[in-house]
Amino acid sequence: MITLASDFPSPYPAAMRGVICSRTDARIEDVAHDFPRQDVRAAAFWLREVLPYFPPATHCVVVDPGVGTDRAAIVVEAGDHQIVAPDNGVAVPVARELAGESDFAVWDVDYSDDETASNTFHGRDVFAPAAADVHDADSIGEIDRCTRTDECVDLRFPDPEVGESSARGEVLVVDGFGNVVTNVPGDVVADRETVRVGGESVPVRNAYAALDVGDRLVTVGSHGNVEFAVNQGRGDDAFGLGVGDDVLIEW
Amino acid sequence: MITLASDFPSPYPAAMRGVICSRTDARIEDVAHDFPRQDVRAAAFWLREVLPYFPPATHCVVVDPGVGTDRAAIVVEAGDHQIVAPDNGVAVPVARELAGESDFAVWDVDYSDDETASNTFHGRDVFAPAAADVHDADSIGEIDRCTRTDECVDLRFPDPEVGESSARGEVLVVDGFGNVVTNVPGDVVADRETVRVGGESVPVRNAYAALDVGDRLVTVGSHGNVEFAVNQGRGDDAFGLGVGDDVLIEW
Amino acid sequence: MITLASDFPSPYPAAMRGVICSRTDARIEDVAHDFPRQDVRAAAFWLREVLPYFPPATHCVVVDPGVGTDRAAIVVEAGDHQIVAPDNGVAVPVARELAGESDFAVWDVDYSDDETASNTFHGRDVFAPAAADVHDADSIGEIDRCTRTDECVDLRFPDPEVGESSARGEVLVVDGFGNVVTNVPGDVVADRETVRVGGESVPVRNAYAALDVGDRLVTVGSHGNVEFAVNQGRGDDAFGLGVGDDVLIEW
Repeated sequence: MITLASDFPSPYPAAMRGVICSRTDARIEDVAHDFPRQDVRAAAFWLREVLPYFPPATHCVVVDPGVGTDRAAIVVEAGDHQIVAPDNGVAVPVARELAGESDFAVWDVDYSDDETASNTFHGRDVFAPAAADVHDADSIGEIDRCTRTDECVDLRFPDPEVGESSARGEVLVVDGFGNVVTNVPGDVVADRETVRVGGESVPVRNAYAALDVGDRLVTVGSHGNVEFAVNQGRGDDAFGLGVGDDVLIEW
Repeated sequence: MITLASDFPSPYPAAMRGVICSRTDARIEDVAHDFPRQDVRAAAFWLREVLPYFPPATHCVVVDPGVGTDRAAIVVEAGDHQIVAPDNGVAVPVARELAGESDFAVWDVDYSDDETASNTFHGRDVFAPAAADVHDADSIGEIDRCTRTDECVDLRFPDPEVGESSARGEVLVVDGFGNVVTNVPGDVVADRETVRVGGESVPVRNAYAALDVGDRLVTVGSHGNVEFAVNQGRGDDAFGLGVGDDVLIEW
Repeated sequence: MITLASDFPSPYPAAMRGVICSRTDARIEDVAHDFPRQDVRAAAFWLREVLPYFPPATHCVVVDPGVGTDRAAIVVEAGDHQIVAPDNGVAVPVARELAGESDFAVWDVDYSDDETASNTFHGRDVFAPAAADVHDADSIGEIDRCTRTDECVDLRFPDPEVGESSARGEVLVVDGFGNVVTNVPGDVVADRETVRVGGESVPVRNAYAALDVGDRLVTVGSHGNVEFAVNQGRGDDAFGLGVGDDVLIEW
């Protein structure tokens, strides 16, 4: 199985699908093609949350603001999964999740011998053929275009500061519902009735529908982190928070 | 085959795909993931219109404003189809369409023994594994987590009032083109040249392009109901109508 | 393999998927369902750019402003590919790309004997069943509903005028990134440092990230044509250009 994830508007993902189908009979499943445009950190977060639910697969990931520059293309082998991606950190958090802190291996991928490759669409001309080749190979080491390396660009999410009566963290992503996902671990709020956010008391609930429509709440999201939400509404608007904003939770 | 339908922004549907692929080799086909957010009635309408075109399949449906509350999860068996869904009525109109007024069977689904299940994402933690289990089982009755029940939340679309010279109905949904779909049966207008809508005469045509670009028309939609539309434009804007609005058609 | 391309909001493509799955076990891959609404020329452009990357397949294309009128439905056979589409020109540029200037064959498709077919949703009632039938047939000629014809509606993209010190062309499409795709061949700008667009000097670069975020550039897009873009921004806004606008590039 090959999964596809990108920030590409259609029909660009279809060109990748076509290239893959021309090279392999592997089943293709989409992860997402509407990751926030060229936001490597947001994509890294979502991949870490979603890819571990898949069975062993080759994941083709293209969120690539540096396309056409000298940034490398890599394959990260993590457990039984392989992630083909630009070397910008996007694949590292999920590799750690799948394989442990450093138990993953990295290969450089070089398709520069392909004279038909464009400068602006490596998703179609580099990552898609690489994913097909990696999927069909018995091992990455046997692929001529792949070379083992010890280095890749790292990406770590910021650590929250959890104290006796408060936690300071950051908004990692806002999902399509408008839920504000922080880096603060859920157990900080899990057993409380209310916490203060921005100085105001907000109820902690484990279901959106535990409150009236339009009410604000703090909850533990499906990723295990503290999330600010509104029952049938948008948490980002109601809390006035966006990606990268600092958050202070007090109790 | 397993179909997926939800109101989930990506990449949430991908987590469901991953869970399903981890449990079964079943082919997965998407129905939609952009049903109007938490609008059970709209989802019920579209499922009734679309699912009968599929061959026998397990349909995993998650439009679930009550996630995390005590609403049940159910499987509805209707003919050769099974629909896994929250017990909020969303699966009932299509079950009636597939199996007749009452010739469908309902099971409660209980995954509360799964300690890793979240409170906020039953699509991933309850409905996806249940759909995989239902798909692969020889019969629903053999699944330990499924218990036959006689009750489920019902959902019926309102009946129109069709008289000698007029029909009163309601807007059921507005599609992505802006076409306004009512509950008035198409044969009310099918043989007429014009009808009056909101007191104004509007032509009845069986093709959008039978009129000039931008012209309003009444037509019989692909679902068999009266629809208000604009050739290459949006009927909802042109007629000033939205979901739930009353409509009066006179002739 | 059957590919699907349309300008249909969901869940309409799912009804097509269901019909196809009811008739054939063929694998289905999506090309796009968000082509600019009823814009035959834009769809024709994208199909020409994307479909050749697929292995031999039956492509079901529905961008069909004339649905319900007397426009024909056709199958175009181009090399090992078949394209099922309304006869409005949408399939012709890709057929030329796949098979050469005139080395493709056209059949009329007639499903008017199907009394259940709607007037407004031929995607579901004509093109989907036709695609399934074409896919499963040993040859198109053996399908009773297909009749060889010598005529179909043509569609050609305008030719640019390339002179000694300037090129005049037209905007063919704007992609989802906001990149402005022209009909001017890329080799006109490929070896230059800058060109003038609308009288202003703009750098020519082969990677968006070769400039600062927000800077305008001219590049050769993945389709081989001149493209106006902004690094991590929208070229259409920054250049004030939309589909059909004339462009003048000077050097």
